[in-house]
Amino acid sequence: MSNTFGTLFRITDFGESHGAAVGGVIDGCPAGLEIDLDFVNEELRRRAPSHDELSTERHEPDSVKFLSGIRDSKTLGTPIAFLVMNRDVKADSTNNQVIKPSHASFVYMEKYGHEDNYGSGRASARQTVCRVVAGAIAKLLLKRHGIEITSALAAPLRPCPPDDTIGAKVRVSVCGVPTGLGEPVYDKLDARLAYAMLSINAAKGFELGAGFHAADMLGSEYNDRQTSGFKFLSNNDGGVQAGISNGQEIFFTVAFKPIPTFRRPQQTIDFNGQPAVYEGNSRNDRCVYPRVLPVVEAMTALVLADFLLQRNANQI
Amino acid sequence: MSNTFGTLFRITDFGESHGAAVGGVIDGCPAGLEIDLDFVNEELRRRAPSHDELSTERHEPDSVKFLSGIRDSKTLGTPIAFLVMNRDVKADSTNNQVIKPSHASFVYMEKYGHEDNYGSGRASARQTVCRVVAGAIAKLLLKRHGIEITSALAAPLRPCPPDDTIGAKVRVSVCGVPTGLGEPVYDKLDARLAYAMLSINAAKGFELGAGFHAADMLGSEYNDRQTSGFKFLSNNDGGVQAGISNGQEIFFTVAFKPIPTFRRPQQTIDFNGQPAVYEGNSRNDRCVYPRVLPVVEAMTALVLADFLLQRNANQI
Amino acid sequence: MSNTFGTLFRITDFGESHGAAVGGVIDGCPAGLEIDLDFVNEELRRRAPSHDELSTERHEPDSVKFLSGIRDSKTLGTPIAFLVMNRDVKADSTNNQVIKPSHASFVYMEKYGHEDNYGSGRASARQTVCRVVAGAIAKLLLKRHGIEITSALAAPLRPCPPDDTIGAKVRVSVCGVPTGLGEPVYDKLDARLAYAMLSINAAKGFELGAGFHAADMLGSEYNDRQTSGFKFLSNNDGGVQAGISNGQEIFFTVAFKPIPTFRRPQQTIDFNGQPAVYEGNSRNDRCVYPRVLPVVEAMTALVLADFLLQRNANQI
Amino acid sequence: MSNTFGTLFRITDFGESHGAAVGGVIDGCPAGLEIDLDFVNEELRRRAPSHDELSTERHEPDSVKFLSGIRDSKTLGTPIAFLVMNRDVKADSTNNQVIKPSHASFVYMEKYGHEDNYGSGRASARQTVCRVVAGAIAKLLLKRHGIEITSALAAPLRPCPPDDTIGAKVRVSVCGVPTGLGEPVYDKLDARLAYAMLSINAAKGFELGAGFHAADMLGSEYNDRQTSGFKFLSNNDGGVQAGISNGQEIFFTVAFKPIPTFRRPQQTIDFNGQPAVYEGNSRNDRCVYPRVLPVVEAMTALVLADFLLQRNANQI
Repeated sequence: MSNTFGTLFRITDFGESHGAAVGGVIDGCPAGLEIDLDFVNEELRRRAPSHDELSTERHEPDSVKFLSGIRDSKTLGTPIAFLVMNRDVKADSTNNQVIKPSHASFVYMEKYGHEDNYGSGRASARQTVCRVVAGAIAKLLLKRHGIEITSALAAPLRPCPPDDTIGAKVRVSVCGVPTGLGEPVYDKLDARLAYAMLSINAAKGFELGAGFHAADMLGSEYNDRQTSGFKFLSNNDGGVQAGISNGQEIFFTVAFKPIPTFRRPQQTIDFNGQPAVYEGNSRNDRCVYPRVLPVVEAMTALVLADFLLQRNANQI
Repeated sequence: MSNTFGTLFRITDFGESHGAAVGGVIDGCPAGLEIDLDFVNEELRRRAPSHDELSTERHEPDSVKFLSGIRDSKTLGTPIAFLVMNRDVKADSTNNQVIKPSHASFVYMEKYGHEDNYGSGRASARQTVCRVVAGAIAKLLLKRHGIEITSALAAPLRPCPPDDTIGAKVRVSVCGVPTGLGEPVYDKLDARLAYAMLSINAAKGFELGAGFHAADMLGSEYNDRQTSGFKFLSNNDGGVQAGISNGQEIFFTVAFKPIPTFRRPQQTIDFNGQPAVYEGNSRNDRCVYPRVLPVVEAMTALVLADFLLQRNANQI
Repeated sequence: MSNTFGTLFRITDFGESHGAAVGGVIDGCPAGLEIDLDFVNEELRRRAPSHDELSTERHEPDSVKFLSGIRDSKTLGTPIAFLVMNRDVKADSTNNQVIKPSHASFVYMEKYGHEDNYGSGRASARQTVCRVVAGAIAKLLLKRHGIEITSALAAPLRPCPPDDTIGAKVRVSVCGVPTGLGEPVYDKLDARLAYAMLSINAAKGFELGAGFHAADMLGSEYNDRQTSGFKFLSNNDGGVQAGISNGQEIFFTVAFKPIPTFRRPQQTIDFNGQPAVYEGNSRNDRCVYPRVLPVVEAMTALVLADFLLQRNANQI
Repeated sequence: MSNTFGTLFRITDFGESHGAAVGGVIDGCPAGLEIDLDFVNEELRRRAPSHDELSTERHEPDSVKFLSGIRDSKTLGTPIAFLVMNRDVKADSTNNQVIKPSHASFVYMEKYGHEDNYGSGRASARQTVCRVVAGAIAKLLLKRHGIEITSALAAPLRPCPPDDTIGAKVRVSVCGVPTGLGEPVYDKLDARLAYAMLSINAAKGFELGAGFHAADMLGSEYNDRQTSGFKFLSNNDGGVQAGISNGQEIFFTVAFKPIPTFRRPQQTIDFNGQPAVYEGNSRNDRCVYPRVLPVVEAMTALVLADFLLQRNANQI
């Protein structure tokens, strides 16, 4: 079940970075939703490397091909399958026997018995193409309900040498969320958001509203009190109380570690446990930012679309 | 589905704070596991209020009653149902028409149409009794596999006045986890842990390993490199790489906001939107710590037990 | 997952026949549904043994106790937990070492390692109490939507000697089902009904509409054609086409084998594989009919309530 | 969720008959399984129309293309995606406005608002291509465990005129199933088989072992008693007792209605409710047999593979 996300609005995806294509099946999207193909491709373009100095220079103009579920630009209510071809399938044979530090090499060997890095293609950032496509469909559904998601750096990036990589902190904001989304107890809205965010490669932390700062606050400083008209006087809770949206802006921050591959040579070992050196190349990104922005937004959209359908279901 | 947690090892629970009992059904626990009833009750005792100055003084000696699934102290492979009676069912009628700030009152009204606080009994901390009982069973399963979970304050608590409450930061550590637990892509081990932690009342943040600090690190500072014998030289990843356990200690931190109810009077509104004052009493805890420790451990245990069974399933 | 039925409207239940109680948790029932307790107990009474000559004479006046999820006779939207106490817990120690033919003894030994019949208490017909309680709640939800379920013998029972048992064939009819319930492909309405019916103890067959007779029909004889006003001219499909309700009466038949326990002595073996004799007593029913009627209706109701909520979810 | 089948071994598929391709994603297949591509294509060939007088004469030499999850003929443990191109996408525009009797036209209009037959492409028999591909992978997994599935007509077909269609009854047999597969209560092995079979287009009935005949048997005639060495003396239960495999041959029968489309003109209505005539052509099959055989076997294989993995999971 590791390759499906969502309960009612669901994405199941596939594809190794070294394969011919990545793609997926979106199930549960209601019939009759207008699909703006340009919007979907624009989301993919936001994820693609630009000439930004932090991102890889590799040319990768992804474009999605829908195989089912859409006719005359409208969803049919049937599963929406899509493919995005992989352009650059030349395997990195030089490094294929080397355990990449803080990456998938070792754990995939332990879990699946793979003895080279081919098998860990599923852990590649290439997989996020699927998240972005599914998220774009979810965003179109949310837009019909007046919900809008944006994201940006939460703090300036620390300067970093050209042969190294840096982490990043991203802030996501969601406006227009009605009250009542989210389920009490286990499927709290914020719990699902944390789940969604930590499922993104390199994510190491999540905080909602005041987040970690809340640990040092007094209740009298923290509480989001309401006044007449049910208006809130503050938003330390980040728009979610008791796991359920309260109608305020939802905002949260996600921390990402530095990308584990960089040009500066690293002492490591190979799959036999022998000393080896691993070095990336100029094609590797130096920070998850800015390419991660459409990914965090996509995962946010998937969570919210799912809860929107669940709220529908809860009618007597 | 909001009241079920887990895929193969699962808890479904129930119970309002104002009802006769809370309880649940644990499904998927293999047959033949020895159940140490004293251990389960000891976990409940850790969750119960002590004479600690931060916790409520209410007398609450919970004890669990198993209704099924165990015979002669061994699991049968059938669902394990349990009940924990509620002692103190006298409803807090004074405050029942008041919207408690940063609590469930408002969102439950919006979601379910409740017009008083009775309906939000499911959001009460009382529900964590169920997590602790299910987590205790999971811990017993994990112990057979050499896995041990501990937790403690991650930083000293900020001093706080007696009529107010404070937040807390808790660090969880798991030793003995074999390599290979967790599923790639969406059901990453750390994603499920984040989900589990944020599902706990008052949790506002989660970070694994170096966590938010990772956002300010260079790749060359951060990476957990391995040397001969596959030995790791550091543990910034907190024991999880690419969503899968790497055999090192798993550790993470959870941030909790101050408990929203305290004795100092708060200006708020009632369910009709009219101004009102809300004040707690001496029975209310002043910090989630220390009672939250068995709860975070229980949720950790549920996540790991689930992945342990999933790893079994993945055999050819 | 073997102890949960349903996707959005779900029952998770527990309890061995030799334990103190059976019970369960109904999750996903919308808030605000009026619960008629008399109706639930009346359904249980229909399941209880009467003075009917085919049913056991044991006194078993079950009554349900709701522990949560209902307040002032209305559902809260929280999980509805219930208990039904077991009256007659005196274990049948005489036969406890004997493998009961065509029963659970052997397979539970093989699956769970049980070496007596205590462990197979979950396979007891006593479990159907839980189905009936959950089904009664589902029926109340369906009634609000004008859906009514009835059942009866589909054919007269074959005469049978007093120390033996007989099978039965039951016909279920559902009126008032709107068009559009059921999901295409795998979660067809009829597929879920078949699943629900075959999950009942002793069920050996299911047929919808013309059923097995359809195998011998020509298309021109079989097809349910429509005329002006979309009116149907026949109902060989039994109210479901392409997995989706078409607004006609839904009807299907379920075949049950004879109850495997009867008074006439049977040659069998014990758990060590040694020859043994097994004989039931006068407390054992001689046919699943009529007590199975509320059970087949309950499972039908659970399937339909689930699809009703799923249809809600599918709104754009 | 209507487009996913299975819990641990899962297929999610997509594709309308009028689209470019059908395909799917198989998730949960363990790593290291040898995939014999010829075998998969041979299964597709069994499903394809032959020169058999009952099947359509349309040329349709399907061949599967795997996009991920397999490398050097072995599964990687990652999702296995596949595509099968549609050859004959020329839409049947003549009949596109006509409600096909006993078909999907009417119910899809009611459920999704489609006003022609394009939208019901998901209900086409073309979808079974996906079942056969996924089932072939499942069969390869089962073969490693010594499990073999076969099927055949259960009774001779009734003669039928050349412009009409006929139903069929198919018997499925599974040999080599170990004891202990299946879960008690709701996920009984036979319940999941009934679910799987009734999810196939045109299926109207399912019976296991003695099936409907069991309704007319006495317990003393029916029971499958065991003798020394736990050997069974009969198999009226069809290899499943209390929902769990008992090590005997598993056999069951599935009834299919006549294919609803045939050449003889049918009086029907169009999507506006006006009288219309519908007639098929020589490309339409006249019976689900023999092409349904690989489909029933595939669904059987999916059920068994799922339970095989679930049994693994249940280890302490």
